[in-house]
Amino acid sequence: MTAGCIIQVINPNTSRSMTETIAVAARSVAAPGTEILAVCPQEGVPSIEGHFDEAIAAIGVLQQVKLGREAGVSGHVIACFGDPGLLAARELANRPVIGIAEAAMHMATLVATRFSIVTTLPRTLVIARHLLHQYGFERHCAALHAIDLPVLALEDGSGLAQQKVREHCIQAKQQDGSGAIVLGCGGMADLARELTQELGIPVIDGVSAAVKMIESLHALGLNTSKHGDLAFPQAKPLSGMFGGFNR
Amino acid sequence: MTAGCIIQVINPNTSRSMTETIAVAARSVAAPGTEILAVCPQEGVPSIEGHFDEAIAAIGVLQQVKLGREAGVSGHVIACFGDPGLLAARELANRPVIGIAEAAMHMATLVATRFSIVTTLPRTLVIARHLLHQYGFERHCAALHAIDLPVLALEDGSGLAQQKVREHCIQAKQQDGSGAIVLGCGGMADLARELTQELGIPVIDGVSAAVKMIESLHALGLNTSKHGDLAFPQAKPLSGMFGGFNR
Amino acid sequence: MTAGCIIQVINPNTSRSMTETIAVAARSVAAPGTEILAVCPQEGVPSIEGHFDEAIAAIGVLQQVKLGREAGVSGHVIACFGDPGLLAARELANRPVIGIAEAAMHMATLVATRFSIVTTLPRTLVIARHLLHQYGFERHCAALHAIDLPVLALEDGSGLAQQKVREHCIQAKQQDGSGAIVLGCGGMADLARELTQELGIPVIDGVSAAVKMIESLHALGLNTSKHGDLAFPQAKPLSGMFGGFNR
Amino acid sequence: MTAGCIIQVINPNTSRSMTETIAVAARSVAAPGTEILAVCPQEGVPSIEGHFDEAIAAIGVLQQVKLGREAGVSGHVIACFGDPGLLAARELANRPVIGIAEAAMHMATLVATRFSIVTTLPRTLVIARHLLHQYGFERHCAALHAIDLPVLALEDGSGLAQQKVREHCIQAKQQDGSGAIVLGCGGMADLARELTQELGIPVIDGVSAAVKMIESLHALGLNTSKHGDLAFPQAKPLSGMFGGFNR
Amino acid sequence: MTAGCIIQVINPNTSRSMTETIAVAARSVAAPGTEILAVCPQEGVPSIEGHFDEAIAAIGVLQQVKLGREAGVSGHVIACFGDPGLLAARELANRPVIGIAEAAMHMATLVATRFSIVTTLPRTLVIARHLLHQYGFERHCAALHAIDLPVLALEDGSGLAQQKVREHCIQAKQQDGSGAIVLGCGGMADLARELTQELGIPVIDGVSAAVKMIESLHALGLNTSKHGDLAFPQAKPLSGMFGGFNR
Amino acid sequence: MTAGCIIQVINPNTSRSMTETIAVAARSVAAPGTEILAVCPQEGVPSIEGHFDEAIAAIGVLQQVKLGREAGVSGHVIACFGDPGLLAARELANRPVIGIAEAAMHMATLVATRFSIVTTLPRTLVIARHLLHQYGFERHCAALHAIDLPVLALEDGSGLAQQKVREHCIQAKQQDGSGAIVLGCGGMADLARELTQELGIPVIDGVSAAVKMIESLHALGLNTSKHGDLAFPQAKPLSGMFGGFNR
Repeated sequence: MTAGCIIQVINPNTSRSMTETIAVAARSVAAPGTEILAVCPQEGVPSIEGHFDEAIAAIGVLQQVKLGREAGVSGHVIACFGDPGLLAARELANRPVIGIAEAAMHMATLVATRFSIVTTLPRTLVIARHLLHQYGFERHCAALHAIDLPVLALEDGSGLAQQKVREHCIQAKQQDGSGAIVLGCGGMADLARELTQELGIPVIDGVSAAVKMIESLHALGLNTSKHGDLAFPQAKPLSGMFGGFNR
Repeated sequence: MTAGCIIQVINPNTSRSMTETIAVAARSVAAPGTEILAVCPQEGVPSIEGHFDEAIAAIGVLQQVKLGREAGVSGHVIACFGDPGLLAARELANRPVIGIAEAAMHMATLVATRFSIVTTLPRTLVIARHLLHQYGFERHCAALHAIDLPVLALEDGSGLAQQKVREHCIQAKQQDGSGAIVLGCGGMADLARELTQELGIPVIDGVSAAVKMIESLHALGLNTSKHGDLAFPQAKPLSGMFGGFNR
Repeated sequence: MTAGCIIQVINPNTSRSMTETIAVAARSVAAPGTEILAVCPQEGVPSIEGHFDEAIAAIGVLQQVKLGREAGVSGHVIACFGDPGLLAARELANRPVIGIAEAAMHMATLVATRFSIVTTLPRTLVIARHLLHQYGFERHCAALHAIDLPVLALEDGSGLAQQKVREHCIQAKQQDGSGAIVLGCGGMADLARELTQELGIPVIDGVSAAVKMIESLHALGLNTSKHGDLAFPQAKPLSGMFGGFNR
Repeated sequence: MTAGCIIQVINPNTSRSMTETIAVAARSVAAPGTEILAVCPQEGVPSIEGHFDEAIAAIGVLQQVKLGREAGVSGHVIACFGDPGLLAARELANRPVIGIAEAAMHMATLVATRFSIVTTLPRTLVIARHLLHQYGFERHCAALHAIDLPVLALEDGSGLAQQKVREHCIQAKQQDGSGAIVLGCGGMADLARELTQELGIPVIDGVSAAVKMIESLHALGLNTSKHGDLAFPQAKPLSGMFGGFNR
Repeated sequence: MTAGCIIQVINPNTSRSMTETIAVAARSVAAPGTEILAVCPQEGVPSIEGHFDEAIAAIGVLQQVKLGREAGVSGHVIACFGDPGLLAARELANRPVIGIAEAAMHMATLVATRFSIVTTLPRTLVIARHLLHQYGFERHCAALHAIDLPVLALEDGSGLAQQKVREHCIQAKQQDGSGAIVLGCGGMADLARELTQELGIPVIDGVSAAVKMIESLHALGLNTSKHGDLAFPQAKPLSGMFGGFNR
Repeated sequence: MTAGCIIQVINPNTSRSMTETIAVAARSVAAPGTEILAVCPQEGVPSIEGHFDEAIAAIGVLQQVKLGREAGVSGHVIACFGDPGLLAARELANRPVIGIAEAAMHMATLVATRFSIVTTLPRTLVIARHLLHQYGFERHCAALHAIDLPVLALEDGSGLAQQKVREHCIQAKQQDGSGAIVLGCGGMADLARELTQELGIPVIDGVSAAVKMIESLHALGLNTSKHGDLAFPQAKPLSGMFGGFNR
């Protein structure tokens, strides 16, 4: 029953072109009755490549989740591979919230015994490693690769970053003993289907995976639990630039 | 794009009434374009409550997966909470295969920080514990409960087992510090939606969860990886009662 | 050589009275040559009891770290038991940054084989649990207790929260098989020394522990590593309300 | 008191020559009073190189365990390195059941701090990895090696597979930092003693190790616990080709 | 081929009566051709109930291992549940060395999915917990019990300690969901067989288990690996009271 | 309040020159009010490179702790990277006891997400690995390196060992993806500050780190917990060469 499903896909950085890449990927897999609302914060960081960037981006994510909730969406996707603000967003939301790292990693464990990750800068590997640990998938990840180019290289039109992703995917298939590959950046969302064809193994994009997860939870009538750990934030007045969060 | 999705839902035991319960649950969440083929083995065990029962049931699962593959289904669900024969089925299949314990546990981690499991006989807890460990969700499970009634008590029409499941779910909500509950038997598939309503927290049935996962993988174009660990079984002649597996 | 050590103690919430409690605790253990700069964000949340609150507070922490760095402090303490923004702050800082949960947990493992945690609301337990996991101390923690009162109850002057902390500490000593207790809130900083005396076991406050850790790292000439994972954030223009972070 | 000990050594595949190799290895270490009954299933797979093969083989193992139990044996060895059907067999048996992977891994931890595994096809490594995890020996295994030849190459009389095993053992000794080597296939049972001599480190065969474990449990009066998880299977009518399991 | 097997069973404390209890237990399970040499240090602690006692006892263990090696024994058992000096003894020995905690825990995992431990003073539980962790059996242990009597209470002839052990074993069987019980003290060696009978589940004594393990390793021709981590200690002159260790 | 702090720094081996190296390192970071008492055992091993050496050295450590306690010191440092006798010393002491491996590892996790270890002989790596595991820092250690020279090569005046340490540190920085390096031997204490400068990342010596930890615990009024696991050893007469431990 995915009819009537409205999914807010939040690009946590402020790049419009990346938001568009993500939107296209999301729409390409959405079920007939699903509407994709692709948004990004008004204010924040142009790309996310570390913990500081994530902390900034998390505020934009939360602002969008609040707007999405007020608009009555069926669920929220956090479309950055670090899943910035995930648990905070789950507190704020009354519908499901899925991060794209989470989505891609879950899907990978369903089609292979072990997977590899291909991401952007080496400094983001620590974030992926922490997420593997948090989600329980440490043993399911055979290796992590970084193409050593910044996130926005994926948007520069040169195709260089895309070529490097492809090379690392081929290398991962040959060397890691993995059965699947997880693409470690929202900006790689458009590459998954083609690489899956070319390499002959599942190459997984978290954006499209997360869209299907929200649709699934929606159809199952499952929402973020408001009992216990993820209950709505305690009501309290936020001050200054955070005043917008007050009801 | 779930249009054209045909899902084989395999009840690994030989109970027709439980197969029907499972079929109803599967169909209740299937997307418009999805067809549910609910099957059970011709030969095997009437219910599954231990490792021996699982070993027997695995053969029936594999026979059905072979038939399903020949019939060109889009994916297979193993509808018993121990996920019997899961990795073997993944070797045999060229489409996705999902176990209902796997499906329910994954979904639970998406809507709560920790979940509880409510299952049938205490002796089956060890199987659930091993699966938590294998899937990486040990730390996500707060507690396991057994109603101490056999699987087929769920099919005896008395409603006693259903009442016990309900009581243990209420208890789990109150005592475990969990945000969600996973129902630990395919025969409980019809209880999830009602208990979710009554308890006000996600109560998750693996059958319906697995159906949505197959639909998702189908829409994403992701199939069981045939590279490495889950490649098709080595071609070799099976003898005697297993001859049916030979091509 | 703690002479010349200036420690910025950041209360991540906006409560002035709690900032004062924290400042007093910090000063009570500071070495002769150490100066304590106790600050809190201008804007943010009055108390921190969940992931949403933490995400908001992290921005204030980062703003203060930036100010502290510009002022040339020797190190930074994040004085909230969830250690909000810790890794982001480490990216931003060129000096050591210590969270009080981290500090207290580390110290506890040095004086006992296992410790208990006593914190405020039950909903914050999940944060403590994640930190134990992240820092490697899961097996060193025997039990977690929540007094079931909000953080600001510690500042209401009634003494009720303090009494409850005391009761839970006594209970923890008797029941958990722990050799030490970690106080799970910056607002409990003033209770540690007295409870250590009364109970006859180490009762550890993270604020004072973190101050000593910064002094230690300062004396050892050890700073946050700028090689690899914790390198300064990539230079990029932040927009809108985050513009203050641009150099 | 190993007098009167009758050990059923079950080769889970249908290869007579491998059954003979295993029988010889078992007899070469059996205590004076021990009788070795080497058997293999009438029906099943000629060799075991994956989860599907294991699922098939498990039925044959269970049939043999039933026969062995009726014949009053003192214990059962499952002589395939994946330990197929181990927990199911323990349910069925009233005497001890030992898998050869289990036996070899246990023994290895008694004589070295870390061990390496040398097995047949790369696709079987995932099975060994899961067993290490299940038995608790993940950290005790330094590395896994595959000779990249199928199981039956060990029976082709050319000696090529044996030569490859030897080469990988030498390599493992030199590169892995391991103190011992575990041979990862029942068909390698005859190589252990000679390689132990040649390499000067313990090279461990699981068949002979398992025989000694059964003798030990027999002498200690320890049988598979019938209290709880491993109690006899629930009595229920099996249908069709499994009817032979009904009493 | 256990003929010609000489096992040195080392009671690490200086209690003659406990050495005798241990010797009787060892002999009661020794194979016909096995000779048991039961020894205890001349100097050391009368009983072992903590890390300090263990450190002292380790020296006596090492002295005995040296003597045993010179006497040409086939293997050494360290008959105290903390396995004091185990890895050091393995460096010193050219034959196998087995600790009784190790032996009992290994055996327990072979006959049950989970076991309970019943030991003496609560303060020794931390040692058992560390060993579970070191050997890889954390998940296989369901619970630990302490009878809260010192080790030597087992030798006072009153039978009180024995009665308490029995009570805790019954309680463990009823409450822990364990299939087997491990006796956590060398001084309980004489109780295992009787309790196994009475309780109807395996109750395991490490002394007898370790004897069978040495016999097994002896028959298999497996000795402590001298390659790498457990190589003989570097030759160096020991001074003072340790001079006896110099060759 | 580090005034009045007297720290007993115990070199567990009998090398006077290494004791002096350690003493210098300890004094170089001690706070103004701190007094360093550098001692080593009268009797024992000249260097520590394995478990046997550690067992011997532990006795000397305990003798010194007893003396230190009688002299009223404020805390004890065990200045060998294997932390020999740590938990036993904590039982014996009424003040804090810190091992240098423990100290260095803790400090490293405060300034980097992952660290590397550079130690002496390969055979000591297993000890470091066990400590990482015991302290909870397995995941924080990216790699371990051995310079393959014995401990006393650091004291031979040739500078060769120091050069090798430097080379391995450079290699570790370049290859391991670590942000910090832990020096794995008390004899390397004098190298940390210079290497920190040269390499531009934290290179951590445990001796100086442990001194600051004792000062910190002293200032915080935190002592080794005498409640439970680390309570004083049970009073019992020690015999023979251990008689000196009797009161």
